Order: sequence, then structure tokens, then C-alpha cells
Amino acid sequence: MELEIKKDERIDIIPGSDLKIIQNRKKFSYGMDAVLLSGFSSMKKEDRVVDLGTGTGIIPLLLQSRYKPKKIYGVEFQEEVANMAARSVHLNNLDEKIEILNMDLKNIPQVFNSNQFDVVTSNPPYMNKGGGIINSEYNFAISRHEIACTLEDIIEISSFLLKNGGKFFLVHRPHRLVDIVYLLRKYNIEPKEIQFVHPKVEEKPNLLLLKCRKGGKPELKFREPLYVYNEDNTYTDGIYKIYGIDKENTND
Amino acid sequence: MELEIKKDERIDIIPGSDLKIIQNRKKFSYGMDAVLLSGFSSMKKEDRVVDLGTGTGIIPLLLQSRYKPKKIYGVEFQEEVANMAARSVHLNNLDEKIEILNMDLKNIPQVFNSNQFDVVTSNPPYMNKGGGIINSEYNFAISRHEIACTLEDIIEISSFLLKNGGKFFLVHRPHRLVDIVYLLRKYNIEPKEIQFVHPKVEEKPNLLLLKCRKGGKPELKFREPLYVYNEDNTYTDGIYKIYGIDKENTND
Repeated sequence: MELEIKKDERIDIIPGSDLKIIQNRKKFSYGMDAVLLSGFSSMKKEDRVVDLGTGTGIIPLLLQSRYKPKKIYGVEFQEEVANMAARSVHLNNLDEKIEILNMDLKNIPQVFNSNQFDVVTSNPPYMNKGGGIINSEYNFAISRHEIACTLEDIIEISSFLLKNGGKFFLVHRPHRLVDIVYLLRKYNIEPKEIQFVHPKVEEKPNLLLLKCRKGGKPELKFREPLYVYNEDNTYTDGIYKIYGIDKENTND
Repeated sequence: MELEIKKDERIDIIPGSDLKIIQNRKKFSYGMDAVLLSGFSSMKKEDRVVDLGTGTGIIPLLLQSRYKPKKIYGVEFQEEVANMAARSVHLNNLDEKIEILNMDLKNIPQVFNSNQFDVVTSNPPYMNKGGGIINSEYNFAISRHEIACTLEDIIEISSFLLKNGGKFFLVHRPHRLVDIVYLLRKYNIEPKEIQFVHPKVEEKPNLLLLKCRKGGKPELKFREPLYVYNEDNTYTDGIYKIYGIDKENTND
């Protein structure tokens, strides 16, 4: 594949890694959510992984940088961003380790057999169909709303993909907690560990990170809360640690 | 009813109220959980309320002190503590407002019709059957373990008691969150508001407070977290406020 950089695209360095990523600031750029999910996840070198709704490919790139699993498939429905992700993989010479699949995740059972994967990750669209205002830019909207797939689709497919005992890592909004937990148990994926992310100490959480296990026993562990900002609006040490940035060097 | 104070019992003042309560420090005394649940709850003067697993009667007494609902029934399985609760009600001249029912909550459908109550509250036993060490003192154990009833019993009965749109307030342990949420939805009670209680800012939560609505629409709101202790191990302002204690006067 020839590496092409299109209009409005640019190559960014991923902080805390040796990797680069193609982003389009107007349409597709990754957020802190993806970085937090990658930091929250854990996997082994022999693991086979699927990232559902991979967008720019940020999660496969970060997972590859951190954990070096055997193979990661990034599934993305939107052709334009899937193409960007594939070019980012190539740019980092990771074509053997990461494969971007431009497809509807509901068609996954036509591509993969069931019970084959060790880990599934997802940073899915956050809004309910009908919840919130749909952005007029369709590409932008599809990344943020459940247009192409619902939360239930993602959880059902994750359960299909995972081996018994396999792990599912999810980042989502706290207001969907009840739906998430209910659907996970419906599809035999048990939530095992949760962390809430709060903008500041005195504020309610605006993200949740969830580690689940297919066929796991009921009992949910809590991690200490993660606070993003200090009182003075600087990032907390917890955030610096997840980004893998040496705080001292940022003062240059 | 003659007011009798038995061996090992004493009359305590309930802080932040004009009320007194009979406690037995060796066997039955209320904890912060009950106070937090009462502070987290809300109800109207015309409401009819049931408190499931009322113990010493602390929750009906606090609710009566704060919100003055029309009538509260406190249901308690253990005869000894139900008797203490009934004497505490009498001690406060609240016999017309609070009634203690010494019965197995599973028999509630023999006593009340369905869909009759505006509010149900519960500070139930926290341990799973088989989870944790059962205390050798049976009375003590029954208050802390699911011996007399399970979480599912409590949620099923709450759904039976509540009118459509009625509110259910629960205090429980975070590690049971998935079970709680799953069972609530199974019995058509939708979690609507949650607050986590952390011993300190940097520590994981050890209690959760949940407001639910029978037949409610899905969407969970988070309250700001409640921290119990400051860095220096003094109580936070949030705790003083819930206890209704004027902090200035505690320095005397």
C-alpha cells in the first residue's frame, strides 16, 4: 500500500510511544477515552485481540505499543476512517500485527468463528439512538451515536468472538451503566472490574472503564477513582502515568 | 406498651434530631449506612413508606424526623430487635406514624396488597450466602448475611409493594453492583440515581446509594461522590451535613 496523506489529514506522534497516527482534525481524531481504555486493558503476548469500532486505529496502535499481542483486528464500519487506520498501521510497519477490517460488525460471524479470541476492546458510540443531537456531519455523527450499531450489537458480537474466560474491555459513559451491565450479563459476559473517571475530585464521573470476563463469576471489584485534573486545571499524575509521559520533560 | 429497657440496652440520642433510640451495643446498633440512606432518600408528607429489614428502626425514625411521611412500616424478621425498634417508636411517641412489623418479608404479600406504596427503603444484609465468615452470634450474623432473605427477595418484594412510579432507595456494597442492577431491572425497578461513598478521595468506594423508580425509563444519573474522611481523618463537611450536625458546636 502506498502511503498517501489526504486533504485535511496530518501525521501526529502518539505521546508515550514510538508510533505515528494519521488524523483528520475536522472529522476523525482520537480522544482521551481511547488512551484511558488502552491503559486500563491488559493482555499477553500470545493473545489474539479484536477492537470493535476502531476509528483511527488508535486502540490497536496503543495496545501494540504497550502489550505486543500476537494479532489485533480493528473493525471499522466507516470506509474513510478505516482507510486512515489502515494507512496508519502501514506507516508504523505493523501490517503483520494489526489488520483493519472495513465492515459492519454485525457481519463478523461471516468472517470469524465463535470463541476464538482472548480479548475484545471497544470505545463505542456513546449516544443512544434518539438521545442527544445528531451532528449534521454524518461521519462525525456515526462515531458518536448508535447509528451503525447499538450497544447490544457490540456486546453480542463480543460474546460471540471471545473464548470462555476471555476478557472484554469497554470505555463508556456512566449514564449507560445499567444498560451496559444488564446486557453484559444477558450475553454471559460478567463485569469484573470497574473504574470511574472524574474530571475533578468533587465532580461526578463522566467516563467508566470496565473489565469483564466471558463466563466469569459475579463479583465486581472497584479500582480507585481516576481524576483527570487537579484543582489548578493541570493534569493529575494518574493521567500522566497513563499517557506514559515523563512529567518532568513536559516542562521544557 | 410499657417502656422497658433490657440488659445491655441503652437509650441514645439520634444526632441531628430530637429523637431517641434504644440500642444494644453488643448486638444491635445502627451504622453510618442507615444515616446515609436516610439523607439520600426523599419523600413527601402524603407518602406511605416501607423499610425492609428495619433493625433498630433507625431508618423509620430518621425519615420521620426529616420528611414526616404519612406512615412508615418497618419490617424486621428478628424478634428481639423488632421489639427494640417498637419500643423506640413508642419512646418517641410516634406509634401513629411508624409501625414495626415483626415478620419474614417474604410473607408481605399476605399482609399488604400490591402497588400500594410510594416509597420503599432498605439497608439489607450485605453478604452473599456463603460469602464472608458467618459470625458465631446468630443475631449478629442474620443482620449482616443473606440468611433470612436474599437480595432478590428484597427487590422482588419492593417491586410488589411499590406503585408504578414509586421510589426505591437502597444502600449496599459496590461489589454487588452488577447483581443489584440486574435484579432491579428484572423486577421492573429502574436505577435512576447513584452515589458512591468513598472513605477518602484516593480510595475506592465502599458503599453505594441508589435511587430507583418502578417502571422508570433507563438513564442513570450520578451524584458527586461522597467522601467520609478528610486527609487528617476528620469527617468531611458532606458527612456533617448528612448527620445534620452543626460542625461549630462539635468543637465544644
